[in-house]
Amino acid sequence: MNAELIAVGSELLLGQIANTNAQFISEQLAQLGINVFYHTVVGDNKERLSSAIKIAESRSDMIIFTGGLGPTKDDLTKETISRELGRKLVVDQEALNSILSFFEKTGRVMTENNRKQALIIEGSTSLPNHHGMAPGMLIEIKNKTYILLPGPPNEMKPMFVNAAVPLLAKVQTNPLHSRVLRFFGIGESALETKLMDLIDTQSNPTIAPLAKESEVTIRLTATHEKKDMAKQLLDDIEEKISLRVGDYLYGYDEQSLPEVVFCLLKKHQKTMAFAESLTGGLASQLMTDIPGASEVFKGSIVSYTNEVKSEVLGVPTQILETYGAVSAECAKYMAKNSQSKCKATIGLSFTGVAGPDKSENKEVGTVFIGLADGQNVYSFPYQFSGTRSRIRLQSAKTGYDLVRRYFRQLSPFEK
Amino acid sequence: MNAELIAVGSELLLGQIANTNAQFISEQLAQLGINVFYHTVVGDNKERLSSAIKIAESRSDMIIFTGGLGPTKDDLTKETISRELGRKLVVDQEALNSILSFFEKTGRVMTENNRKQALIIEGSTSLPNHHGMAPGMLIEIKNKTYILLPGPPNEMKPMFVNAAVPLLAKVQTNPLHSRVLRFFGIGESALETKLMDLIDTQSNPTIAPLAKESEVTIRLTATHEKKDMAKQLLDDIEEKISLRVGDYLYGYDEQSLPEVVFCLLKKHQKTMAFAESLTGGLASQLMTDIPGASEVFKGSIVSYTNEVKSEVLGVPTQILETYGAVSAECAKYMAKNSQSKCKATIGLSFTGVAGPDKSENKEVGTVFIGLADGQNVYSFPYQFSGTRSRIRLQSAKTGYDLVRRYFRQLSPFEK
Repeated sequence: MNAELIAVGSELLLGQIANTNAQFISEQLAQLGINVFYHTVVGDNKERLSSAIKIAESRSDMIIFTGGLGPTKDDLTKETISRELGRKLVVDQEALNSILSFFEKTGRVMTENNRKQALIIEGSTSLPNHHGMAPGMLIEIKNKTYILLPGPPNEMKPMFVNAAVPLLAKVQTNPLHSRVLRFFGIGESALETKLMDLIDTQSNPTIAPLAKESEVTIRLTATHEKKDMAKQLLDDIEEKISLRVGDYLYGYDEQSLPEVVFCLLKKHQKTMAFAESLTGGLASQLMTDIPGASEVFKGSIVSYTNEVKSEVLGVPTQILETYGAVSAECAKYMAKNSQSKCKATIGLSFTGVAGPDKSENKEVGTVFIGLADGQNVYSFPYQFSGTRSRIRLQSAKTGYDLVRRYFRQLSPFEK
Repeated sequence: MNAELIAVGSELLLGQIANTNAQFISEQLAQLGINVFYHTVVGDNKERLSSAIKIAESRSDMIIFTGGLGPTKDDLTKETISRELGRKLVVDQEALNSILSFFEKTGRVMTENNRKQALIIEGSTSLPNHHGMAPGMLIEIKNKTYILLPGPPNEMKPMFVNAAVPLLAKVQTNPLHSRVLRFFGIGESALETKLMDLIDTQSNPTIAPLAKESEVTIRLTATHEKKDMAKQLLDDIEEKISLRVGDYLYGYDEQSLPEVVFCLLKKHQKTMAFAESLTGGLASQLMTDIPGASEVFKGSIVSYTNEVKSEVLGVPTQILETYGAVSAECAKYMAKNSQSKCKATIGLSFTGVAGPDKSENKEVGTVFIGLADGQNVYSFPYQFSGTRSRIRLQSAKTGYDLVRRYFRQLSPFEK
């Protein structure tokens, strides 16, 4: 079974938004073992949409449309498909009721074009929309499956996962099972070199490395009709990989480094505080993005000037004068004082040169990260490269990885 | 002239990344007045790529490819196109020299497949790659233009802007000139209502509103062969719009609210500090993302617990006990003390409930923002909605907008 995604919307062709719907659906289909061979984007234009449908029908078993189900004149996806399929549009009473009740509840006056949103293609299964008004639909005609989904991602995603996936899962006999391993602190080519023989002889599961922003992931994909057997295949290959590069393996699937550290802190009943110079609030922001962060995160002092470093954070001016703010010594004081002032168990500090210009005559990318745990104070030097954003992000992530290594007693914290 | 974009790469069809290259190129082409009618994504597969090329040739004047120019076996874009066009691949000596010198400089051994990257289609103009090894190319055959670009965005974007756009701009006779107006604090429908008659009678320039994350933009697009006449058309319509909703207009094109505030602070020779609770470092991070932020930004105290609020930031415990941390009174102290402790001219504070759970028995989305300028201390209440991320971002942006309004003496700071 192979699928094609057709996104309908001129805003995509004008570059106002990226086609993130295609990414989401593709990832979901990969997990179901449905091959996606093409993505197409076409504007709000009947003729070009019709022609895209004909091309897709000639090469794909399943066509999934996103966008163009709304109330305005621009929204012409279902009208065009219904004409191509020679099927009428009929009222979906449930959808109409929910539209009517929305307008009743909000006290707004319903304009006539909203009624249009309740129309579905005759013979299709309606996919309810719990986050908007237009329902989706799924219809099978002559061995082809057509799925229509709304364009706004917050409506499309839950509809696809909750209403479309269960219908599709039934069709598949040999589904794929994927697991993503996430690595930090090792480059893609170094990782590939260490796993070369495994990659060269891969069959089931497949092993697909991918370089992401300052990280590398490996997607393992096993094919098996039984879920527990697929899990066993994934466990086996993961164990082989772990034996070689397990120190760098920080998490799975969609986990982020801050989430992993959040869980470690919770597990060990520890708390954390930051002192941030070059990262300027980024490390804190990554932590506080996590719901429940206040359980483990006390606060931070963003000391962007030497004045704030000495007067708010209490770094001795002598240290700043002798070694400069970008120094191992300053990083140590920053870590120690953030820990004690915020009454956390662990203090983590970041000082360095994010660029674009040198600072204190130190090169762009020079970074020191400090870690204090109430007993010991550590400081580690780094030399990062790339843009300002990249250096900041790389610094913040490296700090999080240090905390992970601290709890796992990995280098440089071996016991 | 109409264009089609073909992205080549199985990672796109697996949903590992989104096709942001298509968004970037589409936006650039829109500015050049080149219509984009289709985006296609196809995997690393010769037959399917060949068929996508044939379809594109049947309907588009210009085909722009991204991806598949690298050294590995997967990279087959230029080989496939050269076969479709019946043209040989030849060595681009300049590209080869730069590849050789890269390996010489880094002391790494060049594998033979790297030499492949220096091949270009015979008769094409090579587009130099200053951020990677594989050059791009542009070739015109039988009134069709083919452009090949590398896949990594950090290589593709500068190549497209610096090498491809100048070649394309020559071709266009009646180019489009765009200007994006950026609004904060007004919803899309309210904005449309105020501009309804202008939108209904638009012709040249066109007026296209778009809701972005907690902002609205209006893209004005004028067609004129003369640049200064197009500019006049844009100025005239912008003036009409400004008369009605100018208070909400904070910037242009790619400007962000923090950038606008950064410029205002520099212009007025003022400095800023933050005290962040629910935003947890986000406001600071947005400011320090700007190169040169240290000119205007002193630092901030991320006080995620009441302990840090009282002991580091100096909010009286009596205030915390009487009114709670999520209160106008606390926001005022936070703003005042961040300003004085960090020795800034303006202190801005954020306290509230980001969710997912209530706090201090206050609803999710309850937010207070404080502003202190050394003389006056203000505090403003808000009720935001949506996810945790959205509430945090909306809070940070609203704070920046308050500072903008403060300098511009707009409501609530009218003199």
